[in-house]
Amino acid sequence: MADVTIWNEFRHEREDDDAAAVYPDGIHETIAEGLGDAHEIHTATLDEPDHGLDEGRLERTDVLIWWGHTAHDEVATDIVDRVHARVLDGMGLIVLHSAHYSRVFKRLMGTTCSLQWREDGRAERLWVVDPGHPIVDGLDESIELPETEMYGEPFDVPEPDRLVFVSWFEGGEVFRSGCCYRRGNGRIFYFRPGHETYPIFENDAVRRVLKNAVDWAASPGGSPRSFGERD
Amino acid sequence: MADVTIWNEFRHEREDDDAAAVYPDGIHETIAEGLGDAHEIHTATLDEPDHGLDEGRLERTDVLIWWGHTAHDEVATDIVDRVHARVLDGMGLIVLHSAHYSRVFKRLMGTTCSLQWREDGRAERLWVVDPGHPIVDGLDESIELPETEMYGEPFDVPEPDRLVFVSWFEGGEVFRSGCCYRRGNGRIFYFRPGHETYPIFENDAVRRVLKNAVDWAASPGGSPRSFGERD
Amino acid sequence: MADVTIWNEFRHEREDDDAAAVYPDGIHETIAEGLGDAHEIHTATLDEPDHGLDEGRLERTDVLIWWGHTAHDEVATDIVDRVHARVLDGMGLIVLHSAHYSRVFKRLMGTTCSLQWREDGRAERLWVVDPGHPIVDGLDESIELPETEMYGEPFDVPEPDRLVFVSWFEGGEVFRSGCCYRRGNGRIFYFRPGHETYPIFENDAVRRVLKNAVDWAASPGGSPRSFGERD
Amino acid sequence: MADVTIWNEFRHEREDDDAAAVYPDGIHETIAEGLGDAHEIHTATLDEPDHGLDEGRLERTDVLIWWGHTAHDEVATDIVDRVHARVLDGMGLIVLHSAHYSRVFKRLMGTTCSLQWREDGRAERLWVVDPGHPIVDGLDESIELPETEMYGEPFDVPEPDRLVFVSWFEGGEVFRSGCCYRRGNGRIFYFRPGHETYPIFENDAVRRVLKNAVDWAASPGGSPRSFGERD
Repeated sequence: MADVTIWNEFRHEREDDDAAAVYPDGIHETIAEGLGDAHEIHTATLDEPDHGLDEGRLERTDVLIWWGHTAHDEVATDIVDRVHARVLDGMGLIVLHSAHYSRVFKRLMGTTCSLQWREDGRAERLWVVDPGHPIVDGLDESIELPETEMYGEPFDVPEPDRLVFVSWFEGGEVFRSGCCYRRGNGRIFYFRPGHETYPIFENDAVRRVLKNAVDWAASPGGSPRSFGERD
Repeated sequence: MADVTIWNEFRHEREDDDAAAVYPDGIHETIAEGLGDAHEIHTATLDEPDHGLDEGRLERTDVLIWWGHTAHDEVATDIVDRVHARVLDGMGLIVLHSAHYSRVFKRLMGTTCSLQWREDGRAERLWVVDPGHPIVDGLDESIELPETEMYGEPFDVPEPDRLVFVSWFEGGEVFRSGCCYRRGNGRIFYFRPGHETYPIFENDAVRRVLKNAVDWAASPGGSPRSFGERD
Repeated sequence: MADVTIWNEFRHEREDDDAAAVYPDGIHETIAEGLGDAHEIHTATLDEPDHGLDEGRLERTDVLIWWGHTAHDEVATDIVDRVHARVLDGMGLIVLHSAHYSRVFKRLMGTTCSLQWREDGRAERLWVVDPGHPIVDGLDESIELPETEMYGEPFDVPEPDRLVFVSWFEGGEVFRSGCCYRRGNGRIFYFRPGHETYPIFENDAVRRVLKNAVDWAASPGGSPRSFGERD
Repeated sequence: MADVTIWNEFRHEREDDDAAAVYPDGIHETIAEGLGDAHEIHTATLDEPDHGLDEGRLERTDVLIWWGHTAHDEVATDIVDRVHARVLDGMGLIVLHSAHYSRVFKRLMGTTCSLQWREDGRAERLWVVDPGHPIVDGLDESIELPETEMYGEPFDVPEPDRLVFVSWFEGGEVFRSGCCYRRGNGRIFYFRPGHETYPIFENDAVRRVLKNAVDWAASPGGSPRSFGERD
């Protein structure tokens, strides 16, 4: 049983009617509901003290899920430092949708994390390109989302260690939608779906991916990391 | 100036009217025409002695381009061995379309190289996902092919060293269409387009890719490879 | 609890006094002893019918461990085909020491798998270069082997997906001693130590690596692999 | 002919007798001398305005070489931003020795870039593990440095795209000494040798590596990078 902290910016749902209609209690609560009771779930949001991520919470967290969009720059530098350090120390990190532009993800990737996008509300189909990966356990060959925002290539990230999903968009684009990375001792999974005005996190297949991703990203053991001067 | 050998199975164009209509002199001649005179071009086909790949020809070849479809199993084992050894020794290899099932490519990849496919004649759009790669030099953000055969994921190959193109298909699929590998000292590029009944190799952007790929795959130097017992 | 099959060529120990002195019951039995009772262990050897690898045994095997040295060419092609297919289908494979030249490993890698070597009986130190990897769980920063055969670079394999160990040899060489790969749905781990005339498989740290590697390579789930023509 | 800018912190050589004895004109001048006249060479140092890296200079630079050690934190954030942006835009970057801790390299890697080290003045041997890579063109199987500082694993960087050198140290350690990365459109090469009190940059093989690395990292073409909203 992993300790999971779901972090949500939690602004759209309080300020925007469309988002509130889909996620009345906030995206974090819908994600929590989807994870069920296999894990110990905590939530944290931007406007709490320390954004809900005090040292004790992060220290106990095995996997941190991150959703943000409109207020990336309001995340304080010392919290970014703290999350970054914990990932390198072995905490798993799952980065959702517009959090490609979060400070934490950009810090870990070292690139702009830019992409192309369009609000279009048409279909997305996420194809499994790595059928042996534990993150796709139990899925069919693809996931169908009837209405989504479009994200297009190029996606300015380092070549993923494992590319798990590639999206097809009805409007004519493709996107590397499921990307696995290791940084330090931590496992990172970027997953594209999740716009605030579509009920993406109620989708069964998306929920299955998040469950699998938590299992995959939870700390997998390892040996000591010794740095510094040697005798 | 690289020495380029274009290998073509050359059966469809002699036996099938549709293929003959598109490639009357054989696919190899159309590819050769597209490469222009920047390189020294040779061609070789299945029904020549040694399939046109005697030791001297291979020894002098910097980059070998391979197209095959209907007669993979007729390629003799000793020629497969010879090509395989030359790639590991530093010869570049460009594998086109249905040659994903060629004996040489399967030998180098170590996997089945299977995929999904459909004869559908609808559009394909190849998106550049690695805009800094020399193989996409001078291209736009995508290549449009109005009529193609569809190839879909999963494509059972090792994770590419660099993924350069991802295809979008009008019928709803995606495919990793441009995959770079290094094996031994040799550079390998798999490029998806190229069906025998569509004039793919007359497309300017496709021709640009092949030119760039030849430049990229041509032997880039290196140091000696010493194997065996040491004192 | 995984089903583990330990395959051993089992010739040196029956024909060579030095090997028999170290591994009187065969290398496979010493490896089995080291794995303890966390898994269901089977053994198989070259001179059994089907080399001990009939279809039922392979079908039930989650992780196959492979040791061979002097008789790689006596492994029948249909058994190589069978093992290869099972790995791509999801069976884990752990390849030990001189089995870098086994037919199965060369088939999966697509390269010569050549290296440099010297019988020298001096020390090897395997440094953990990926301290977050589950295969090094519980280890110190390095493993010390007082007497070993030397393997040196270049090691002609594809760039590993994850490089876990790098060896330092007293005689002046280095080697990529722990290499992780994915091929198809199967996980592959190459581990360098294990000469037939040194008691490597009695070393506690080596035994820990093998236990961890079995856990890592055991089938991790996934989604269906659909190949062939689509409607 | 590439435009190369050699950046040096240039403090040790002005403040420390041992460094001044080895590099009286600064490390940058010795590196420049080693590159010869195949390229257009510029130098820049920390205490110049803009650290010598004004926008025009960076804009014209194809490959930037970076040496720093004692004053990483004095490199201004806006200059780090500027260099970082240019790398993602396609400028090559060669990072030497103690510059593993430079702000630019840490920004690009996203990790701590920590390692183990010891001032010991004993021998290092850099083994070529990727003999087909253009960076090792013309080298022997290894490079011998009679006296160096030791760097040991774990080196906290992302898994390199290509690992080119692995070092053996007389004192018992190993290190991934030549690491290639792509970030955005830029090529990055980390090369371990280069301490300020050993004449490493006068070594012929080291000079050959730097020449090769400049050729490799110089902008290799590519296609436009379009980011942002699409119609």
